[in-house]
Amino acid sequence: MRMQSTMMPVPLSLNHFLERARLYHPKVEIVSRMPDKSLHRHTYADFHRRAKGLAEALVTAGIKPGDRVATLMWNHYAHLECYFGIPAAGAVMHNLNLRLFPHDIAFIVNHAKDRFLIVDDVLLPLLAQFAKDVNFERIIVVPLTGKPVEQGHEDYEAFIGKATGDFNCVEVDENAPCGMCYTSGTTGNPKGVVYSHRSTVLHTLVAALPGGINVSGTDTVLPVVPMFHANAWGLPFMSTFVGAKQVFPGPHLDSESLLDLYQRERVTVTGGVPTIWLSLLQTLRANPAKYDLVPGMRMLVGGSAAPESLFRGFDEFNLEVATAWGMTETSPLGTVSVLKPQMRSLSKEEQYGFRTKQGMAAPLVDIRLIGDEGEVPWDGSSVGEIQVRGPWVTGGYHDLPLNESSFTADGWLRTGDVGCIDSEGFLRLTDRTKDLIKSGGEWISSVDLENAVMGHPAVLEASVIAVPHPRWAERPLAVVVLRPGMRATGEEIRDHLAKTFAKWQLPEGFAFVNEIPRTSTGKFLKTKLREMYKDWKWE
Amino acid sequence: MRMQSTMMPVPLSLNHFLERARLYHPKVEIVSRMPDKSLHRHTYADFHRRAKGLAEALVTAGIKPGDRVATLMWNHYAHLECYFGIPAAGAVMHNLNLRLFPHDIAFIVNHAKDRFLIVDDVLLPLLAQFAKDVNFERIIVVPLTGKPVEQGHEDYEAFIGKATGDFNCVEVDENAPCGMCYTSGTTGNPKGVVYSHRSTVLHTLVAALPGGINVSGTDTVLPVVPMFHANAWGLPFMSTFVGAKQVFPGPHLDSESLLDLYQRERVTVTGGVPTIWLSLLQTLRANPAKYDLVPGMRMLVGGSAAPESLFRGFDEFNLEVATAWGMTETSPLGTVSVLKPQMRSLSKEEQYGFRTKQGMAAPLVDIRLIGDEGEVPWDGSSVGEIQVRGPWVTGGYHDLPLNESSFTADGWLRTGDVGCIDSEGFLRLTDRTKDLIKSGGEWISSVDLENAVMGHPAVLEASVIAVPHPRWAERPLAVVVLRPGMRATGEEIRDHLAKTFAKWQLPEGFAFVNEIPRTSTGKFLKTKLREMYKDWKWE
Ligand SMILES: Nc1ncnc2c1ncn2[C@@H]1O[C@H](COP(=O)(O)OP(=O)(O)OP(=O)(O)O)[C@@H](O)[C@H]1O
Ligand SMILES: Nc1ncnc2c1ncn2[C@@H]1O[C@H](COP(=O)(O)OP(=O)(O)OP(=O)(O)O)[C@@H](O)[C@H]1O
Ligand SMILES: [Mg+2]
Ligand SMILES: [Mg+2]
Repeated sequence: MRMQSTMMPVPLSLNHFLERARLYHPKVEIVSRMPDKSLHRHTYADFHRRAKGLAEALVTAGIKPGDRVATLMWNHYAHLECYFGIPAAGAVMHNLNLRLFPHDIAFIVNHAKDRFLIVDDVLLPLLAQFAKDVNFERIIVVPLTGKPVEQGHEDYEAFIGKATGDFNCVEVDENAPCGMCYTSGTTGNPKGVVYSHRSTVLHTLVAALPGGINVSGTDTVLPVVPMFHANAWGLPFMSTFVGAKQVFPGPHLDSESLLDLYQRERVTVTGGVPTIWLSLLQTLRANPAKYDLVPGMRMLVGGSAAPESLFRGFDEFNLEVATAWGMTETSPLGTVSVLKPQMRSLSKEEQYGFRTKQGMAAPLVDIRLIGDEGEVPWDGSSVGEIQVRGPWVTGGYHDLPLNESSFTADGWLRTGDVGCIDSEGFLRLTDRTKDLIKSGGEWISSVDLENAVMGHPAVLEASVIAVPHPRWAERPLAVVVLRPGMRATGEEIRDHLAKTFAKWQLPEGFAFVNEIPRTSTGKFLKTKLREMYKDWKWE
Repeated sequence: MRMQSTMMPVPLSLNHFLERARLYHPKVEIVSRMPDKSLHRHTYADFHRRAKGLAEALVTAGIKPGDRVATLMWNHYAHLECYFGIPAAGAVMHNLNLRLFPHDIAFIVNHAKDRFLIVDDVLLPLLAQFAKDVNFERIIVVPLTGKPVEQGHEDYEAFIGKATGDFNCVEVDENAPCGMCYTSGTTGNPKGVVYSHRSTVLHTLVAALPGGINVSGTDTVLPVVPMFHANAWGLPFMSTFVGAKQVFPGPHLDSESLLDLYQRERVTVTGGVPTIWLSLLQTLRANPAKYDLVPGMRMLVGGSAAPESLFRGFDEFNLEVATAWGMTETSPLGTVSVLKPQMRSLSKEEQYGFRTKQGMAAPLVDIRLIGDEGEVPWDGSSVGEIQVRGPWVTGGYHDLPLNESSFTADGWLRTGDVGCIDSEGFLRLTDRTKDLIKSGGEWISSVDLENAVMGHPAVLEASVIAVPHPRWAERPLAVVVLRPGMRATGEEIRDHLAKTFAKWQLPEGFAFVNEIPRTSTGKFLKTKLREMYKDWKWE
């Protein structure tokens, strides 16, 4: 017989994290902004007791391993309790995206076959809009406002309060599911991804490393990214694991409220999509001396491409924007842009070159670029479809047939993103496959153009799409939002771009608008834009 | 059917680390001190090519998954190649402890059924002493001195040089073995522990975290602890994984050689047993201004208890001693003493209280204390046997029957160490079960006494053992080595101790010696001491 390892077969489990919180970090704080803007504070000891209370109550209520319990919640302490309490019951946490259209939420609830719902009282009006299309066995309401919970619904506090406290977490196989999220639906219908204890534990370990997202016990972490968007990028798992202080913004995501929390709670790590940071930067600029933030606070950005101007802008305030790329399908950490030690001696300009890239594959993630003729070299310019593989990457979608357009025959995920990788191993995303512009037989990167347009001082936001063109098949159209009180013509912006782009790459037209339509997770909704501008008249 | 996770079934594998080194850290250096004291330098790109060459050559030579390939080597680049090249062949690296008696090495080689040996040319004289008792199919010699390899043996450079370079690492199940080590034999015969890809990968991920041993890409790491002693505590795996520069001392472990390397290569993290650090401290003190080391260099200490004077001594030089506790059986990371954020505002004295403890269980490791009446509370004083459980903890010994004295019925490892845990979760080791002193029905901690005796300014080293006593069953005897040129009497040391110990806890006698016998891994050999002093005449 072949030699066997003598190691214990101990499964990876989120329950270990939960117990660790009590044993080693009982006094560390969890701070949440409530709907009335007051701050709710408690500790990991409270969190541990309440999350286990939730688990016990769920088991008592008949939840079995693998059953889905949905959440419809903002980012706050009770949502964190669900992150650990639902898996501790052996069940699967399914966080619902409250920014979707109600009928889309209903579709997802039914597709996932959610049994119970835990919902913020302030979100009951949203629930009312799709309640008739779904069939929850129980609806448990978190009384954030302090008002009594209405008849027919259960009070979360009463529900978890019934627990005896004498409960051992349900132990399941490490490959058993513990959570699920649906994709943002930017390119089509949202698709379900089901995480396991194993994938979540491994993702947490790696993402917490300095070469990953870098969260340690000395940090104070505020996820602006919603806890229903790819698990708030895993930040709540990481923070709990390392015992970092956690700060949650609740429903108050306006810049003033966030800045106030950053300052008050001495936040050191935060994460959000570019839109959030763009508006935060405007607020800071409007009143540069108002806020006293922790110098060097790291602001993770992901979800869509962030313009270089964002990095430069926050650098002026000694706040460090750091790029990560990922997908609901990748738990979500795929790549992260961390400067290598030798890059720290580069000029600031050269550093921007790397910092604005999507970065290196996270440890344990394999990445490759596939072009028409197979693998594309890592030369910094050759472009291909990004494919990934790893223990926290999905190999399929929940309750959907395996699809060649999403997975390769040799088991890699086709991300639908295209980009190039340089000789340092840094990925640069140039587009989504579906957003590529093919003009006169040549590909044009919409992301590169957007970034450059947003570099014009008068431009607040810009999205570039392909519009049919009689001669060139497609030509780029830039949809532009100007900064309040500022002016610029298409001609001026084109001149600005002509410094760095070839003539045939320049936008053929400019549409000035007040707002660009967005997806539920804050991305430019290009499907909508293409629809809006499909009959654009080229001059 | 219960819901399934959609995650890819990607196994954890050391091969991923090896490929990562080439992709992301090709230019990072690996520096090794050669037998002639010159420095050998190459890069991760070289390391990758050569380790894969070794793997290919092993497979070509007939090594099959699970076969054992032994190493008899100092710490250097070729040993690192074995760390990854042997597993990349699907085989099991078995590093032999060159400090054991030759007949013990032979016993271990035969017990492990090692097929091949890779050996430093400078260690051939040692091999000659047991060669007739073992039966390696092939002996591959690393020509560290540059002299031609003698007939009958194979040249490592030629062996790996034959590789075509067109080789894919052998992929095995994540639970398949990749390495094995034998315990130090402090309390009995060395026992074999077999690590798996899974256990090694998980250990590496966690140990690299700031809450673990804390190694990142910005570090330069020098393991003084031998690569045959619990895999040099995993430092080579961690360093390769994060792309840290690695520095190896080769056979030159004297203080001057080490200090020279620290200074020259700007080392930031190092690890070794207390003896090594005690002599290093003496050298530094003898010539305080001679060396310019990286301020705050972290010096991990483990393997046996480190006296508080060591922490204080190095603090004067702005070098930070940090305690870790572990065993060959635990890969080896069990606990590590990392101050919690709120502890950083304690006084220096209070900090020593925590820093000298063995610390908190590493993430993913469960720990408990078992006394006569079951679990002992974490109150900082109640003492029990330390038991551990986790994915990198052994559940048995290679080719030995499962033994109740080593494993509990519910699957925990009985470490044979005793200690207490405080309310912060910090473990303090007070003894090994076998070294406990029972005097008049009361337990006395030999470790506490040793630490205090070594706190006396005239004492260099001290070991305290139980010696039979006609009236009290056992009484403590302190075996003491004085600092060169210093003097102290037993009476004086006893007076010094009387400030902190009760009278009945004080050593009953003092034996002054020039040297304390040690194990192959640098621990006090108390079995030998007890034998030597069993007929001690109490006054
Ligand atoms: N740092 C980044 N830079 C650019 N794009 C990013 C970045 N991070 C994420 N993205 C984009 O977000 C996508 C993943 O987003 P998510 O999983 O939220 O759903 P979606 O892809 O927007 O929606 P759907 O898959 O339903 O169309 C990536 O495939 C990529 O296109
Ligand atoms: N920081 C530490 N402080 C005190 N003791 C330690 C520390 N780290 C390790 N040890 C001791 O070392 C032991 C593990 O050592 P190792 O695996 O090298 O073999 P050994 O226990 O000395 O030998 P054997 O098991 O064969 O008797 C632990 O069980 C503990 O007694
Ligand atoms: Mg997508
Ligand atoms: Mg032992």
